Amino acid sequence: MKNIESLGEFGLINIIKKRFSANVSGKDIIFAAGDDCFCFKAGRSNICVTKDMLVEDVHFKKDWISAFDLGMKAVEVNVSDIASMGEVKPKYVFVGLACPGNVPVSYIKKLYEGMKKACCKYGAVIAGGDTVKSEKLVISVTVVGEGGKNIVGRNGAENGDFIGVTNTFGDSAAGLDLLTKYGAKYDFNKDQKYLISRHNLPQARLTQANKIAKHITAMTDASDGLYISVDLIAKAGEKGANIYIERIPLSEPLKRIFDARKRKEFALYGGEDFELVFTAPASKARLIKKLAPSVSYIGIINNSKKVKYFNNGKEEKTKYCGYKHF
Amino acid sequence: MKNIESLGEFGLINIIKKRFSANVSGKDIIFAAGDDCFCFKAGRSNICVTKDMLVEDVHFKKDWISAFDLGMKAVEVNVSDIASMGEVKPKYVFVGLACPGNVPVSYIKKLYEGMKKACCKYGAVIAGGDTVKSEKLVISVTVVGEGGKNIVGRNGAENGDFIGVTNTFGDSAAGLDLLTKYGAKYDFNKDQKYLISRHNLPQARLTQANKIAKHITAMTDASDGLYISVDLIAKAGEKGANIYIERIPLSEPLKRIFDARKRKEFALYGGEDFELVFTAPASKARLIKKLAPSVSYIGIINNSKKVKYFNNGKEEKTKYCGYKHF
Repeated sequence: MKNIESLGEFGLINIIKKRFSANVSGKDIIFAAGDDCFCFKAGRSNICVTKDMLVEDVHFKKDWISAFDLGMKAVEVNVSDIASMGEVKPKYVFVGLACPGNVPVSYIKKLYEGMKKACCKYGAVIAGGDTVKSEKLVISVTVVGEGGKNIVGRNGAENGDFIGVTNTFGDSAAGLDLLTKYGAKYDFNKDQKYLISRHNLPQARLTQANKIAKHITAMTDASDGLYISVDLIAKAGEKGANIYIERIPLSEPLKRIFDARKRKEFALYGGEDFELVFTAPASKARLIKKLAPSVSYIGIINNSKKVKYFNNGKEEKTKYCGYKHF
Repeated sequence: MKNIESLGEFGLINIIKKRFSANVSGKDIIFAAGDDCFCFKAGRSNICVTKDMLVEDVHFKKDWISAFDLGMKAVEVNVSDIASMGEVKPKYVFVGLACPGNVPVSYIKKLYEGMKKACCKYGAVIAGGDTVKSEKLVISVTVVGEGGKNIVGRNGAENGDFIGVTNTFGDSAAGLDLLTKYGAKYDFNKDQKYLISRHNLPQARLTQANKIAKHITAMTDASDGLYISVDLIAKAGEKGANIYIERIPLSEPLKRIFDARKRKEFALYGGEDFELVFTAPASKARLIKKLAPSVSYIGIINNSKKVKYFNNGKEEKTKYCGYKHF
């Protein structure tokens, strides 16, 4: 009997999408299941909804992240999905909290303080939710955003478009690697602390997304790593891409601590960087860089329907070796 | 150190509401945290959002309910929250699924078939979601509904209003009692099966809600039992109420199987009946009964700020003895 583990996350999502969400279409629907958010028209407004769960001992360990930071992260990762739709503002945040009875009240207060802080940062509010008992802590956050005209899906990439990213890659996976190796109590140096903070406190790139939305053709956020994000954009647009590995921006701490092989592994396959990956016409590349100076271009879209990776001019065979959800 | 168990669910909700959601107000917000749904204006539309989680071995046991029924129930309980806002249609359903790796794929397919069936019933669609790994099955459903003019909160009850309910009470708790006593494999008779089906397959009263919305002053759904629902409506409107226990509608199977004491306990304190509890001016009572014939009136709102229970003319002291979430 086949189980979820052998099917894998993407196998499971495919079944759900094909068999149970395939009937989602209609004049009111802008982007349906399969994009980072579900977007629909309500009157003259564009409403975007996203939902992400964080499960104790799967997505986080209580020893490795403070309750406050966990609260912030739970909101940031959802705002990141909102950001990936372009010109959208997160407005209402709904929190489903499944929680063991023995968790201290002070822990839950800190958790909500973190969520509130992240909400305030983006002008959103905690608008409702649900609290239930469970054996492990589960935080299920839903964010409702309101969008302007420039809503961007994953599927608009055109031949010749530049592929851009909002910041460095691999830091989050490197931070997780350090926590796994040494535990949270280890006396980390400044570089190591930086990488861990990139894992524990990702920043949604909402400001950049709002600024560049008008000029781009496709976008997603790299929650499952750069490699998968590029694949998603290429597939959604029925295009191919060439990625130039040496152009992928890496942070100085990452470069100082990890060797070239590890750096590449973290940058391509490591998840949870929550940077945006987008495509834009070459003619807009300079303007975008001006609007969002942290942007780097790492490749070009083509019609080949294949994604190829090059390292200093030489093609490199790649194979996904990132995190498996099941 | 105080923990969540000693604080209790309502203590927890109070902290969350007061400290973290208190800043929710504004011209776009119709009903905020604390009502069954969060409702806001987007352009000319009224959008209602609700979120409910079902946790394995807390809200359900896999042995006691089929995957298909569990899927239906997960949607029904959320549509029930939508229904309790009056003239609202559920439109988009988002499913967060946290799931152990060893769950058979066939189980998950059945679960989604159940959700899809319930969605179809109400003209809604599964629009997106998230799948993650966990030790226990957790189903976190968010429903987005679009409302007409007649959105009803918990807080509009007026002195002299009749208190109405959409159907019988106590069946769900009685069904759960039978499952707890005998297990799911027991050879139940027809009456017992009826009560169990009322527990496993609650029906959201959306049709009734939509029909009566225009004529009522307050409404909630009885997810935590009739006693708590009446309390919520009285408190939200800063009113009191007299409830006439002998008028609370009970099903024939409940009456045949359980004695008067048990029946009253189930009807007042048993959760998950998902019937609507509403208030309406006495002048509208007959019209409402015509629009929704299953409606019964069980009491009257007054200005006393106390909820009193009477049984055949004699006051009965009551004390909450229902399910504690933590």
